[in-house]
Amino acid sequence: MILELADIRIAPGQQADFESAILHGVQTVISKAQGFCGYKINKGIESPERYVLMIFWETLENHTVDFRNSPAFAEWRAIVGPYFAAPPVVEHFELLAKSLSV
Amino acid sequence: MILELADIRIAPGQQADFESAILHGVQTVISKAQGFCGYKINKGIESPERYVLMIFWETLENHTVDFRNSPAFAEWRAIVGPYFAAPPVVEHFELLAKSLSV
Repeated sequence: MILELADIRIAPGQQADFESAILHGVQTVISKAQGFCGYKINKGIESPERYVLMIFWETLENHTVDFRNSPAFAEWRAIVGPYFAAPPVVEHFELLAKSLSV
Repeated sequence: MILELADIRIAPGQQADFESAILHGVQTVISKAQGFCGYKINKGIESPERYVLMIFWETLENHTVDFRNSPAFAEWRAIVGPYFAAPPVVEHFELLAKSLSV
């Protein structure tokens, strides 16, 4: 399993609308994508306009090829894109180690 | 529960040594800290010198006050600090939403 980590900055004061939008986008678009395994949406404490979206995919290509080349990518961006203050910074990670409790 | 997200960049070619060190540091120092709930260590795919360390704490202050003011903080930094190419970027997050599967 691969972690997509998207570091998102939104325009000030748009938190409530963005939170509704990202939930809607994840639940209606991303969660139906091939290879989708799960998600977490994290909201910044020190930086209240920062969100870290974590999407777990079966393979790297499920995100970078299958999802990004599908019509779902444009649907997703149409839902969340209007709130972005800058292009999200997106990279992928492998899990090196974790505790039993998380 | 609060997520500490530490975005770490290490010196090139030090991956194997750093991975041993961070595992040792988390298991022997951080996991004994007050309020520690769990951890994940993620290794960058596009950026092989990038690691994202996630530590889950009961409260924000368990990290920012209790841990950082304890002798354990210096112990931890002595173990992992030598590998850092730059000071880690550390912020904290609340969980807004997640799927059942993660």
